[in-house]
Amino acid sequence: AMDGALLPPSPTGLSAYLAVSQLLGLTLLATTGAWLGHYRGGVAWHSPLQFNVHPLCMVLGMVFLQGDALLVYRVFRHEAKRSTKALHALLHGLALVIALVGIIAVFESHRTKGIPDMYSLHSWCGMATFVLYLLQWFLGCGFFLFPGASFLLRGWYKPQHIFFGITLFILSITSCLLGITEMLLFKISDSYSRFVPEGILANTLGVLLVAFGLVVGYMLTREEWKRPPLAEELALSMDFKTLTEGESPGGGS
Amino acid sequence: AMDGALLPPSPTGLSAYLAVSQLLGLTLLATTGAWLGHYRGGVAWHSPLQFNVHPLCMVLGMVFLQGDALLVYRVFRHEAKRSTKALHALLHGLALVIALVGIIAVFESHRTKGIPDMYSLHSWCGMATFVLYLLQWFLGCGFFLFPGASFLLRGWYKPQHIFFGITLFILSITSCLLGITEMLLFKISDSYSRFVPEGILANTLGVLLVAFGLVVGYMLTREEWKRPPLAEELALSMDFKTLTEGESPGGGS
Repeated sequence: AMDGALLPPSPTGLSAYLAVSQLLGLTLLATTGAWLGHYRGGVAWHSPLQFNVHPLCMVLGMVFLQGDALLVYRVFRHEAKRSTKALHALLHGLALVIALVGIIAVFESHRTKGIPDMYSLHSWCGMATFVLYLLQWFLGCGFFLFPGASFLLRGWYKPQHIFFGITLFILSITSCLLGITEMLLFKISDSYSRFVPEGILANTLGVLLVAFGLVVGYMLTREEWKRPPLAEELALSMDFKTLTEGESPGGGS
Repeated sequence: AMDGALLPPSPTGLSAYLAVSQLLGLTLLATTGAWLGHYRGGVAWHSPLQFNVHPLCMVLGMVFLQGDALLVYRVFRHEAKRSTKALHALLHGLALVIALVGIIAVFESHRTKGIPDMYSLHSWCGMATFVLYLLQWFLGCGFFLFPGASFLLRGWYKPQHIFFGITLFILSITSCLLGITEMLLFKISDSYSRFVPEGILANTLGVLLVAFGLVVGYMLTREEWKRPPLAEELALSMDFKTLTEGESPGGGS
């Protein structure tokens, strides 16, 4: 099964799913912009509109950029692993910075308006997700980017990194849905139940967030679409296999 | 790798995770009961308390029972595949019936109080999840329980069934979190931001729901914990492998 697996063409379907995912991602951002721009007065720092920076940054950073960061190993299938890793870390880093701006926006807006922080389920889920996402980023850099970690250590951490990475992406989307629900019940609680356009638009944003998560999740978990190892990685993983499964004469716990 | 893989002991750690998952599941139910019983007047049909049947049934059916139905292939690792499948279908069926009762409860409660249906993001996500869960149940029975479907067809559908099964479990938990947020903003919007005990309790229920999903999700996706095939399944899957990968002389599409 290994011969010929080194440079196969991109799997059928993957490009179509990628196109759909990016179209959904851009639609997400446009829908968020339309909601904030058309119904919520727009976005501005140091103004009563500062709160609106929060949803925009969270959708852009914690959903769109985080999702694309997860996809780089599927998209750049035949680039050197090290460049792909660097892009993965860079996109997550950018997502973290944008999310941080979004979090500062909501705390400053609360302080200006005298609203307490961190009492809602949305804030609990969102803050836990952000802190764990930051931790996961540091751990990922420590284990995979810096040369210190051994192959054994990387091999142990990799499945955990993948599981928690997908989990944090799901929790990010969940936190956005909670935020949409809160915002609608704060702002249009009187008219929400009469199917007003703003309610329909914001609900649709929620559905689009779920759809984006679904498409990205499908692309990530489909076995045939996983990144094939390059020649030099195969050689290394063979060494690793020998090291862990065979009887290594040089010891090791 | 196959010899000796037929009847290994349960993997280390799996029992501990199972215990934690069940403890979390029971704590979920107790916390839901405490919220509804202590702060929301309890649960009753044909009464102003009918609404409270909704969260209780959804947490019991769509989260606890659905989660346990997903775990049966990890727990009953060495039982005949057919009995495990039957239990899987039965638990999902029970979850569906209980969820249906919960959905009827909220529609009847809305009708009595004159509240419109299906306008909120919670209702959109929850209803979509329930309808797709019912569809997934019928498809699962059709493909895997009734003898009509060929091995080829089952082999094609199985990864889709697993992906959408886990997706629906995640969406169920997400819908519960949206429901908790809605209910708190309907009932205690004045005091929620003052960290009142009911708010803290309901937020904690949300965190427990996420924790249950996390533990079940980890158990389901960990490679070493997947159910090992029994002797007769191995023989069958060998035939299947020959049929699909090798050159079958007897035709096939």
